[in-house]
Amino acid sequence: MVRLPNSWFILCTSRELGHKPISRMLQGTPLVLFRGAGGQPAALLDRCPHRNVPLSLGRVVGGQLQCGYHGWTFDSAGECRAIPGLSGDTRAKARCAASYAVREQDGFVWVYSTPGVVPTTEPYRFPLLDARGYSTVRRIVRAPGSLHAALENTLDVPHTAFLHGGLFRTAKKSNEIEVVVRRGSDRVEAEYIGEPRPKGLVGKVLAPGGGVVQHFDRFLLPSIAQVEYRIGDDSHLMVSSAMTPVSDWDTLIYAVVTFRLPIPHWLVKPFLTPVALHIFSQDARILKEQTETIHRFGTEMYVSSELDVLGPAILRLLRSVEREKQASSSEPVHETRLKMLV
Amino acid sequence: MVRLPNSWFILCTSRELGHKPISRMLQGTPLVLFRGAGGQPAALLDRCPHRNVPLSLGRVVGGQLQCGYHGWTFDSAGECRAIPGLSGDTRAKARCAASYAVREQDGFVWVYSTPGVVPTTEPYRFPLLDARGYSTVRRIVRAPGSLHAALENTLDVPHTAFLHGGLFRTAKKSNEIEVVVRRGSDRVEAEYIGEPRPKGLVGKVLAPGGGVVQHFDRFLLPSIAQVEYRIGDDSHLMVSSAMTPVSDWDTLIYAVVTFRLPIPHWLVKPFLTPVALHIFSQDARILKEQTETIHRFGTEMYVSSELDVLGPAILRLLRSVEREKQASSSEPVHETRLKMLV
Amino acid sequence: MVRLPNSWFILCTSRELGHKPISRMLQGTPLVLFRGAGGQPAALLDRCPHRNVPLSLGRVVGGQLQCGYHGWTFDSAGECRAIPGLSGDTRAKARCAASYAVREQDGFVWVYSTPGVVPTTEPYRFPLLDARGYSTVRRIVRAPGSLHAALENTLDVPHTAFLHGGLFRTAKKSNEIEVVVRRGSDRVEAEYIGEPRPKGLVGKVLAPGGGVVQHFDRFLLPSIAQVEYRIGDDSHLMVSSAMTPVSDWDTLIYAVVTFRLPIPHWLVKPFLTPVALHIFSQDARILKEQTETIHRFGTEMYVSSELDVLGPAILRLLRSVEREKQASSSEPVHETRLKMLV
Repeated sequence: MVRLPNSWFILCTSRELGHKPISRMLQGTPLVLFRGAGGQPAALLDRCPHRNVPLSLGRVVGGQLQCGYHGWTFDSAGECRAIPGLSGDTRAKARCAASYAVREQDGFVWVYSTPGVVPTTEPYRFPLLDARGYSTVRRIVRAPGSLHAALENTLDVPHTAFLHGGLFRTAKKSNEIEVVVRRGSDRVEAEYIGEPRPKGLVGKVLAPGGGVVQHFDRFLLPSIAQVEYRIGDDSHLMVSSAMTPVSDWDTLIYAVVTFRLPIPHWLVKPFLTPVALHIFSQDARILKEQTETIHRFGTEMYVSSELDVLGPAILRLLRSVEREKQASSSEPVHETRLKMLV
Repeated sequence: MVRLPNSWFILCTSRELGHKPISRMLQGTPLVLFRGAGGQPAALLDRCPHRNVPLSLGRVVGGQLQCGYHGWTFDSAGECRAIPGLSGDTRAKARCAASYAVREQDGFVWVYSTPGVVPTTEPYRFPLLDARGYSTVRRIVRAPGSLHAALENTLDVPHTAFLHGGLFRTAKKSNEIEVVVRRGSDRVEAEYIGEPRPKGLVGKVLAPGGGVVQHFDRFLLPSIAQVEYRIGDDSHLMVSSAMTPVSDWDTLIYAVVTFRLPIPHWLVKPFLTPVALHIFSQDARILKEQTETIHRFGTEMYVSSELDVLGPAILRLLRSVEREKQASSSEPVHETRLKMLV
Repeated sequence: MVRLPNSWFILCTSRELGHKPISRMLQGTPLVLFRGAGGQPAALLDRCPHRNVPLSLGRVVGGQLQCGYHGWTFDSAGECRAIPGLSGDTRAKARCAASYAVREQDGFVWVYSTPGVVPTTEPYRFPLLDARGYSTVRRIVRAPGSLHAALENTLDVPHTAFLHGGLFRTAKKSNEIEVVVRRGSDRVEAEYIGEPRPKGLVGKVLAPGGGVVQHFDRFLLPSIAQVEYRIGDDSHLMVSSAMTPVSDWDTLIYAVVTFRLPIPHWLVKPFLTPVALHIFSQDARILKEQTETIHRFGTEMYVSSELDVLGPAILRLLRSVEREKQASSSEPVHETRLKMLV
């Protein structure tokens, strides 16, 4: 239940936003997205200031958004530019719809979470999107949990042996590995050293010939979960999950998987999606149960062990954004080490 | 979200109230209606004072209402007249069910919204019901919005070009007309002067031969919306919508359409209902969206333009009833004028 | 809306609790039941202290309950005995799941409503379960009402003529009987003296040859409703309803009917269940309507007559447990008498 001001979130793909306005919820607030003058995407509060009907029910006329009830018409900045039946200038501060900064980038439409301000940052750039030899798969999945729970779940190693047992890791522990955790002002990263080549299905695809595994799990403010695997020189997998807090207990994950593998990518692709969706459906089920339990009890009450290397740090970072008290990026990175059985 | 004391509202038609008790909600309060001694309608709070079971589940025995759980029996005044198993007089103040004044008039059962008092007013009389040469059509429709939103919607001109474009008026404005607004202590009226004969379907029915249009939209406390059209000497249409606030966000509209037209009424009638229902279904959809938006945002926040000639005045009148501070009817009518493009 | 501490309630039958953990709600709190070491039933709060996922989604491994998310494993006392990936002792107070005392008795699993304490009482023993010449029928039914409403309904005589008219008693009153009410510190009992042999179907089964009727309705703290009938020397019927408050407005009734009759029991049994279920479905409907009415009005507001011999006394006893101010059992029983027409 963290609300993040001054942050960029993906609200839809470029393809989803056509001639019709569409409605999207961001941190519990309904927004309307439409393509204004020149096809540039725009985002307004999805409530006509006149009689509180959703603007997303209206239509786009000449690059402006017209409410379907009385025809009040708004430009991309949210100014009221026409009221049918009324002659003269219709612009007035009280008649404005709150407007949000928008960027269209990498095929996604990003919206800034604080209305009426000029952003001081730019949205996340997905790495390796156009890198030579890399392929990309995109998926949107819904996680029925809080932003924090979805982020921790995506970047958590110990649960994989249980929830996804057989696919990633087995429950039978045999290897002790070292985990290096690096905490910065806008990120936290865990590096897993000495991890054996993953057993099971995923391992066989990632590294048919074996090799040393490099594995990083990263959280980048405000809501990016990054999982990176390298096995030897030939295999490289980067999963960026840009998470959008739809409401306090509902998160949309825009996942971009970029990879380079020593086997033909056309062989990998049809197999990557069902495996990823299977893993995700298991995670979604747990997040749903977690959310329902929190609602049933009326409160969250977490206890952590040393193995929860990223979760508490992610929460601290999210809270720093919420309070607008994020540490300066010049602050040194703080490094700790621990052992984990995998 | 206005609650109106000391006001008459229609709770059912005469035909709906037969031998069985029926339950109705008024401003969020469940009432039971039944026919007591001599078939006279009666209204009680729909909760047995004994064990809080709805009295509407019981049955009418000898003009008294008997609860279905233990058989406690109430007369039209709400007094407990029998408790099976108990001998002696059963009347006691604590055992009373709150009772509401009732009038049966024009085929409707009206209930006074404050229990336990003698009304100081009488219900609205539908005009022209028995007038020579007039025909009447009655319909009940549900408006999923507040009483105020439903009243304003019914009496609003500018939205018709948008929501009902083609039927009433076109979005393309060409005529400037004058609107006279008259505000009194128990009503507000808008008169439209210079309005051209309505274009489209409705216009052709109302005035096949053309003529000068007289058009009044009236709100009469507590909850009557009246739309009156005259075209020349031959066409006269009066739509009275008696609105019942079922709950804060749900309104029932008992509409009575009375008309005189220069074409045979049997030709008009089968055509009047589907057109009216089509218009209404568009309004109902908008009211539903408006209500949902208000709930999503947790509050109403309206901005008006000069064209909103009745809405703010209706709200002031409703609030005066709510606070029991209605101005005396001797107060002079206040008149203002403005221009509108139609 | 009474919450009872330090009280035993049935949460499931012995048969329902097998190899898998099961979830049960008690007074609004989710619990997980499982069979721990030696097959002994155990009850924990159904929330993993780690990440708030229900433990009932996990599985039992070696008599311990393992969470399905990260594999945290708990013993019957709620102590965390294993965290996969972590070496060393995992026990720590913060990592405990709250545990509840459990008894398995008469084929039911009873749970003590206050966690972390040693019970000062033992669960109710169903009478006559193994008595010679007696037969037993068990049923579980759901009553959509508060514990108090379900208890009063089960032990109330006057409603039977209305709700179950024809089966038990007729609405036409002809006999005046005497009711003796005895109030103790942990119970209240009503004895009906001079009651005629029940008319209708039930009467014919209970006493084909007639005889004097002895009838007791008893409430025993915390939640047992006992109805006992004797007719002559040959017929004896004892219905114990052990009620479990699932939530404030939802009650489960574990009913045990023990009887001895002068006709073959195999003849009675197939007939007992449908009659009982029919009666119960009528009661359940009324309780549901009562509950909905209370929710609609936002509050309970009961008025009683002299015929409500047990309801108010039951509420006082429940409240005494809630406040942990139950009178000592040495307090004398208080007896009153009244007349009732049946």
